[in-house]
Amino acid sequence: MPMFIPESLLNKEKEHVEGFAPEVAWVTMGGSEQLTERLCVRPTSETLFCEHYANIIRSYRDLPKLYNQWCSVVRWEKTTRPFLRSREFLWQEGHTMHATAEEAQEETLRMLEIYANFFEGDLGMPVLRGRKTDKEKFAGAEATYTVEALMHDGKALQGGTTHNFGDGFARAFDIKYLDRDNQLKYCHQTSWGVSTRIIGGIIMTHGDDSGLVLPPAVAPIQVVIIPVQMHKEGVLEAAEALRARLSKFCRVKLDASDNSPGWKFSEYEMKGVPLRLEIGPRDIENGQCVLVRRDNREKLFVSQDDLEAVIPETLEALRAALYEKALENRRNRTWDATDLDTLVDLANNRSGYIRAMWCGELACEEKLKEVADVTSRCMPFGEEPIGDTCVCCGKPAKSLVYWGKAY
Amino acid sequence: MPMFIPESLLNKEKEHVEGFAPEVAWVTMGGSEQLTERLCVRPTSETLFCEHYANIIRSYRDLPKLYNQWCSVVRWEKTTRPFLRSREFLWQEGHTMHATAEEAQEETLRMLEIYANFFEGDLGMPVLRGRKTDKEKFAGAEATYTVEALMHDGKALQGGTTHNFGDGFARAFDIKYLDRDNQLKYCHQTSWGVSTRIIGGIIMTHGDDSGLVLPPAVAPIQVVIIPVQMHKEGVLEAAEALRARLSKFCRVKLDASDNSPGWKFSEYEMKGVPLRLEIGPRDIENGQCVLVRRDNREKLFVSQDDLEAVIPETLEALRAALYEKALENRRNRTWDATDLDTLVDLANNRSGYIRAMWCGELACEEKLKEVADVTSRCMPFGEEPIGDTCVCCGKPAKSLVYWGKAY
Repeated sequence: MPMFIPESLLNKEKEHVEGFAPEVAWVTMGGSEQLTERLCVRPTSETLFCEHYANIIRSYRDLPKLYNQWCSVVRWEKTTRPFLRSREFLWQEGHTMHATAEEAQEETLRMLEIYANFFEGDLGMPVLRGRKTDKEKFAGAEATYTVEALMHDGKALQGGTTHNFGDGFARAFDIKYLDRDNQLKYCHQTSWGVSTRIIGGIIMTHGDDSGLVLPPAVAPIQVVIIPVQMHKEGVLEAAEALRARLSKFCRVKLDASDNSPGWKFSEYEMKGVPLRLEIGPRDIENGQCVLVRRDNREKLFVSQDDLEAVIPETLEALRAALYEKALENRRNRTWDATDLDTLVDLANNRSGYIRAMWCGELACEEKLKEVADVTSRCMPFGEEPIGDTCVCCGKPAKSLVYWGKAY
Repeated sequence: MPMFIPESLLNKEKEHVEGFAPEVAWVTMGGSEQLTERLCVRPTSETLFCEHYANIIRSYRDLPKLYNQWCSVVRWEKTTRPFLRSREFLWQEGHTMHATAEEAQEETLRMLEIYANFFEGDLGMPVLRGRKTDKEKFAGAEATYTVEALMHDGKALQGGTTHNFGDGFARAFDIKYLDRDNQLKYCHQTSWGVSTRIIGGIIMTHGDDSGLVLPPAVAPIQVVIIPVQMHKEGVLEAAEALRARLSKFCRVKLDASDNSPGWKFSEYEMKGVPLRLEIGPRDIENGQCVLVRRDNREKLFVSQDDLEAVIPETLEALRAALYEKALENRRNRTWDATDLDTLVDLANNRSGYIRAMWCGELACEEKLKEVADVTSRCMPFGEEPIGDTCVCCGKPAKSLVYWGKAY
């Protein structure tokens, strides 16, 4: 899909344009000429996909449709933060069209679970799965679902979102299909995305004072081999032989540069390489080597014969430990509030999630922002209510909400 | 590298901005606010890479640098043509920095040869390798090299280009390195790119009246299996067994839909699938199947036992035939002109390349555009001069040039 959206196309779905128009970059000139119609640099591509759907969807046989694209999008943010909030970012945006509302809802929740598993499995980042309030949902969506991560400093990060649009855009763009019963019906739409913001999430979840700590699944180098006393006979050869062996089952680098071993240790700690393998003359003599984990600096003396088993095990142990540590951080930073004073006190003096009941009214959401500077992060799936009344107004509560300060 | 280039950055290298400023899209507003400095949507990224180089290159140890990115760029073309010339296009742009002029020139020519081999090998498209005249070179480059393809209608297509910038941008952006001899020196720069225009080139080189003809290397489906009389017992099972076998060594699809075999034949011809495999009850009985080549419709009756050998051979034969046919087309559409009348006559009445000698002056290049509507495509490598005097002005000639009309 193209990079530019003509203003008239962006304007087709009312809620969508209201949400996005204030934060798009406008192209107004081509070469030295003023354009007759402004073009916005895409902040997201629903309108472009809808124009396409309207051209290609005719019959139930054309459904479902599933598209995915990786592209850069632009949102004219007032304040930016490296990796976490930038005006341009690379993302993956998936778009689907379905015959029925049920199928669209199923797809929306399936993608949420795929994102959640990616975060918790590959990235070792525990996430809350839940639904966004109307205030926080995607402009034009009927419902937005989110996976929310908690950074080590207690700030929340929206990790990825999935949206069910119902037939709202389909009505605005006149996207209909002829069903089996010979009736013309509107299609039901979803979209979902994650961005390179995830990189910021990894840094802020797992990193420490020595630098990055990368989950093995996404570490460009999983094991770095550092020869010790490498000018002694046989050391480099042994290190190179190990590199060749390890390259068959993991991403490995041998650093044979002139820098000192100590310098290299720091270098690869900073870069977050999950495992360091040290090998020197004494190790070679004993048929062993030293493995050092990036996360807890644990040192393992390992027989060289066992590396094919020990390295994958250790990488998985590290991943599980990253997850556990992050989960522990979330547990330690989650508090319940059943009255407004407690909520304000927690918001002022703690950093993390506050669980509190909510009546469902925008007014209360806005008041909590005003008095406690927190926003609703999500209405979580599968958690029991902690009361019957809204923490803010005292009226009957509709749902439990995680509140917090977010990046 | 980012999508936007601030106007002040684009302005840093004089020739570059003169070449590109007339054809860029300008972002002038962010949300509802006028920007204090206009941003152009990148038409190419030399200025962005140079700003980066200036920050990271200090010493000869930092060189060479090599970057590649795939991204969309925008050039505000007056007239567009699907695939061949669009305002936004996806391309690959490579950028390098070197310590010496020699190394930069070597890289420039190495990449040209890599592109040429890709066109002639994988895509079956013969190309001329040569240098662009100063009029046709990339804005800001010292020298631009090109691979030029000829479409079946006799129009030329610039397939890919490589540029040697010398130290021009390095001086404009102050990119220096401390050499081994302790002297500060300017770096030498190259860049090179090919774009999705190649897709247009494939269509216009190999396509015929029945639709696409795709070279096997880039065909999403290399072999389509079409069952004949597929509701007879055993046909679908045999077709599926072949699909499973073929999937081990090629990209194969079995079309078991309800459409008739004839409809399917046309469908996959239109889509350019290189090989069609037909299998019906009689074939199964005889342990054979039918292979039909997309390019010449040649029908081969093949024992099923031989498919592992015959299919790769046939795909390669098809590729070679595509190349030969395109080369033959170029031979038949290349003429020599040693005087202006002949050149004008050829330009008016034939469609293809005109080889003619040139004095090296811009005036003659502009005159040929005026009187014959041709542009210089390239000064080819390794071809003998066909005269001593310029076809236009009669003064001593400096080089042989291929002239033509281009997409």
